Amino acid sequence: MGFWKSLFSSSDAAAASRSPKGDAWVEDASKSSAETLGAGNPYSSTYGVSDYRQGTRILFSTERDIDLYELEELCDAVGWSRRPMRKVKKAIQYSFLVVSMWQVRGTQRRLVGFARATSDHAFNATLWDVVVHPDCQGKGLGKAMMKYIIKKLRSEDISNITLFADPHVLDFYRGMGFIADPEGIRGMFWYPD
Amino acid sequence: MGFWKSLFSSSDAAAASRSPKGDAWVEDASKSSAETLGAGNPYSSTYGVSDYRQGTRILFSTERDIDLYELEELCDAVGWSRRPMRKVKKAIQYSFLVVSMWQVRGTQRRLVGFARATSDHAFNATLWDVVVHPDCQGKGLGKAMMKYIIKKLRSEDISNITLFADPHVLDFYRGMGFIADPEGIRGMFWYPD
Repeated sequence: MGFWKSLFSSSDAAAASRSPKGDAWVEDASKSSAETLGAGNPYSSTYGVSDYRQGTRILFSTERDIDLYELEELCDAVGWSRRPMRKVKKAIQYSFLVVSMWQVRGTQRRLVGFARATSDHAFNATLWDVVVHPDCQGKGLGKAMMKYIIKKLRSEDISNITLFADPHVLDFYRGMGFIADPEGIRGMFWYPD
Repeated sequence: MGFWKSLFSSSDAAAASRSPKGDAWVEDASKSSAETLGAGNPYSSTYGVSDYRQGTRILFSTERDIDLYELEELCDAVGWSRRPMRKVKKAIQYSFLVVSMWQVRGTQRRLVGFARATSDHAFNATLWDVVVHPDCQGKGLGKAMMKYIIKKLRSEDISNITLFADPHVLDFYRGMGFIADPEGIRGMFWYPD
């Protein structure tokens, strides 16, 4: 079951603004102010920089050419069961949206977050494999990534975003505006015997 | 919210076997016996024919060229809110699986059931817009359609089938082997403000 687990802390809010290439950035406040970055972006808020070193920035991307070994390492770090790489590759290929979060220091970048969504390209999107590296939890980065994802899906005119949340992340998603079991609607699962 | 409503009765079981073209059929017992139709098919069981007229049969199909006005009529019959046809068309186009259920009498056929699934083509599929015409509820046809859908998804190596069930259809899906909130995992929804 572990593969739709999400590991987040809902502590701080995070700033997300758009770079000229269309990527969203969360910048270290030592480089520029969160207010400046967030200006005009309805999804932005204040970035918690308390335990980030100078010169570190967070980059979001929707590129799909993710190193599968690096992704496996990220999933290992949160204790998920390994899955066949061939299937992970296919799932990424056929997801509607793939979002990765990178910690950038100088010329080096490290995958610290990931999520993907399936969709009918019209009404619904469903999030899967939402993960943030344990080193980066509790800093508002999960929240920043979710805001980025919601913004991307909204820009594609998707109005119904769904997910299946483990008990320990319900409050995190509630804080993002997600509602559990609205009008008594329940998530249900079927597995092979 | 109405568009993922499902309207079923879980009364009778239904036989589903494969025609040479790969479609699954539920035949009127006046034409051939359910046992014969179900032979060798792990998803087949006994078909409830109590209020079906002679010469009527039920056909399942995965064809996507569905008359959108006929689909709208079916959704109207169960009281769903109308949706823009352009978006319904796109949702059908980008769904992983589209299943329709037809009532066939002689040369005439009538759309009596519909469902579609989004998927990452690897791990997960999520069912949407599961609908059975009120005239055809309580005859085991919803169950037959679900068995057909599960069989199709399993044949594509999808192991995790999910859906969001309205309260009044929870028992129907439970009867099909679906589990609500397994390990405390909850379905969550985000809508625009």
